[in-house]
Amino acid sequence: MTTPKTIPYKIYLTEDQMPKAWLNLKAVMPEKPDPMLHPCTLAPITLPELTPLFCEELCKQELNDTDLHIAIPEAIRNFYKMYRPSPVVRAYSLEERLGTPAQIYYKFEGSNTSGSHKLNSAAAQVYYAKQQGIENLTTETGAGQWGTALSMACAYYGIHLDVFMVKVSAAQKPYRKAVMQTFGATVTPSPSNTTEVGRRLLAAAPDTGGSLGCAISEAIERAMTTPNARYELGSVLDHVLLHQSVIGLEAKAALDLYGVTPDIVIGCAGGGSNFGGLISAYMADRLQGKNNIEFLAVEPASCPSLTRGRYAYDFGDSGQTTPLLRMYTLGSGFTPSPNHAGGLRYHGMSPVVSKLYHDGFIKAKSYDQEKVFEAAEEFARCEGLLPAPESSHAIRAALDEARRCKETGEAKKILFGLSGTGYFDMAAYSSYNDGTMSDALPTDADLARGFATLPQIPQNA
Amino acid sequence: MTTPKTIPYKIYLTEDQMPKAWLNLKAVMPEKPDPMLHPCTLAPITLPELTPLFCEELCKQELNDTDLHIAIPEAIRNFYKMYRPSPVVRAYSLEERLGTPAQIYYKFEGSNTSGSHKLNSAAAQVYYAKQQGIENLTTETGAGQWGTALSMACAYYGIHLDVFMVKVSAAQKPYRKAVMQTFGATVTPSPSNTTEVGRRLLAAAPDTGGSLGCAISEAIERAMTTPNARYELGSVLDHVLLHQSVIGLEAKAALDLYGVTPDIVIGCAGGGSNFGGLISAYMADRLQGKNNIEFLAVEPASCPSLTRGRYAYDFGDSGQTTPLLRMYTLGSGFTPSPNHAGGLRYHGMSPVVSKLYHDGFIKAKSYDQEKVFEAAEEFARCEGLLPAPESSHAIRAALDEARRCKETGEAKKILFGLSGTGYFDMAAYSSYNDGTMSDALPTDADLARGFATLPQIPQNA
Repeated sequence: MTTPKTIPYKIYLTEDQMPKAWLNLKAVMPEKPDPMLHPCTLAPITLPELTPLFCEELCKQELNDTDLHIAIPEAIRNFYKMYRPSPVVRAYSLEERLGTPAQIYYKFEGSNTSGSHKLNSAAAQVYYAKQQGIENLTTETGAGQWGTALSMACAYYGIHLDVFMVKVSAAQKPYRKAVMQTFGATVTPSPSNTTEVGRRLLAAAPDTGGSLGCAISEAIERAMTTPNARYELGSVLDHVLLHQSVIGLEAKAALDLYGVTPDIVIGCAGGGSNFGGLISAYMADRLQGKNNIEFLAVEPASCPSLTRGRYAYDFGDSGQTTPLLRMYTLGSGFTPSPNHAGGLRYHGMSPVVSKLYHDGFIKAKSYDQEKVFEAAEEFARCEGLLPAPESSHAIRAALDEARRCKETGEAKKILFGLSGTGYFDMAAYSSYNDGTMSDALPTDADLARGFATLPQIPQNA
Repeated sequence: MTTPKTIPYKIYLTEDQMPKAWLNLKAVMPEKPDPMLHPCTLAPITLPELTPLFCEELCKQELNDTDLHIAIPEAIRNFYKMYRPSPVVRAYSLEERLGTPAQIYYKFEGSNTSGSHKLNSAAAQVYYAKQQGIENLTTETGAGQWGTALSMACAYYGIHLDVFMVKVSAAQKPYRKAVMQTFGATVTPSPSNTTEVGRRLLAAAPDTGGSLGCAISEAIERAMTTPNARYELGSVLDHVLLHQSVIGLEAKAALDLYGVTPDIVIGCAGGGSNFGGLISAYMADRLQGKNNIEFLAVEPASCPSLTRGRYAYDFGDSGQTTPLLRMYTLGSGFTPSPNHAGGLRYHGMSPVVSKLYHDGFIKAKSYDQEKVFEAAEEFARCEGLLPAPESSHAIRAALDEARRCKETGEAKKILFGLSGTGYFDMAAYSSYNDGTMSDALPTDADLARGFATLPQIPQNA
């Protein structure tokens, strides 16, 4: 720990200070997450069963729960240097505006063209695909950040990419498609009639706005039926959280330079990759008894997997084709209201985040979207940065915490993750500005319908 | 000059290394630009004549041609710290892809929410307005970067803003309007029926897509007819170039850390604020005999003020209400084709840039927009950053120069200005991607019609 210095507005690490290894949280968890199961045998899945779907190195990372540090190949570190390190920003203007004694810091992941943290895993996944000689990749995207990130990495490495984009998001964010196409990707709104699972889902619900779970099914089918192809997932899985640990490692390294340890770390959580990455370094220390930091996951009230879901084995996709993951889930058949414009629409939650939440290391809360956009606008006008609706869930919680500190007089140190920018979310901002935004929170009956789609296996009893 | 070190991908100055004073190029120009003239008397304009239009401090800066350094107030330096310093990036990937012996650097100004360098002057202009107790500001915007930048600064300082947005740009970039509204601004497509000059222009050409010159006229009229209001301009004028000198000062400071001096500095030029800012520090040295750097301004072939315009006194606006500026101009009645989506649509050019060009210190070239978007896409896929069409004019010239170096074997050091991002230009990228983009270059007859609108005064002879 160095002598405290005046803390600048933005802390940038030098290239030398950037992480050289990812952090694998599973290695230090007192209890490991339950294993991924084969959907037919219900036995823990093996490496050979996983490699037809994902690149081999990613499968090894997925199943690795012993190595705390996994080296980042030099080529990936060089890719990271094109857009990283991302800064830790001290929100001085916001603190002043709120009149809070709290210190507010945010780790900003949105200054690359994908507009979010997603590029951290895309860069790694496409690198490993290239190393393995894969020529075609497929994926799904919701809000579009992941599809854009993977398009960028695929353009860089010269690999063809098929993106299935959730239909309602494609309609809400028309220009996201154009960005992916500019990077050379083929983009198909999902559900589509280009896959069997898509045709089946369309037949059952012709007017559906789609869901991430459904787009995943289509992308997997495309990968399995295309020569020399693999599927890539942008969140949820352990290897994605591994890559995203670069967020938390950089955040801690930056704050350590100024002797700052946060009292609370706040992140938005959809599939969990941003949140899991953000908390990685501090959580590893917490699990080893080195700090007592509070971790808060924030999710939309319209897709409340942690706060209203069940901790159960479930499929990762609506088509019910993936391995089973034990996670907080609303059921793979759950689809949030198409009115919900705040992203974070996935029915489940990273098994690592889910297990930590289940074991009491993480707290969770949810907000409806008007409260989220209200916070987004307040933040934007003060800090001069238009946040993604997803990230604005964390902003809302951070603002509430800072206001609470104003009442209590606590000089808490708050770190939140600003995972991305909202430049492609202006349709949603417009509806907020003109007062036509509404949210449609799931009723208990909606949730019951989702839970009814959980697989009927003993673990769910 | 320090010992050469390995140059990182991105060079960030520390806060201590950021400029504490702007650089006023006029102070070291061997011949000053001709003075701004009052449009009625044709005499050089005086401070009292200018202050009803602009804030007083800005007027003083506008007329100052003796002080090389003008201190940046601490409040503005703190605003700058929210989004600056911007990095100088070494385009290692691009160099490798091109196989060029040239070193390619770019100064990236797009990582703030306005998406461009425009915030550098907006922050200053609104600060001075606030200091003077002004409650309402008006402005025009074309592509939308300036309007967004000023909206951000006005939101920060709590000043109401009226933006007149060129009608064709408003149609091409629908979400820009939503961004400005999110920051609290009132946005009106121009020409509009809310001003006299707008009604007059609409009567003469009901189907016009508008022009920057026309939007300026409307914004000025609104400022002159609103209590406690002033007008703000985002480019062209000397005080704007002064504020933008922060780009060039930072660029030189960053490259100096590694002992690098560019052989050529390339920037896109519309009104000239980006270009004038980018070249500031190196040009000041050049004018004092300290280097022999080549400076290249790049403009669209559809709005070629430097390469096909006249060096003459002209109005800054289509309504012919502003003071007269001696500059390279196509005539205030010139309007580029609505098919042109690459920005940089202004009929004139900064008097400082014009004078330096006239005196041989600057070269200029133009490209049609297909070539510009081709370069944009090549750059994006390689460097992972989607550039603004405006900035892509500079990219095209830099790529051409780097390819020439490959042929000749020259290890030239190229610095170009990446003035902004293209996240709100996806309609234009889409038309490029689907092959429907076309440009409509002005014919000699088009130019003659523009020149016919030049004021008939002796200086134009």
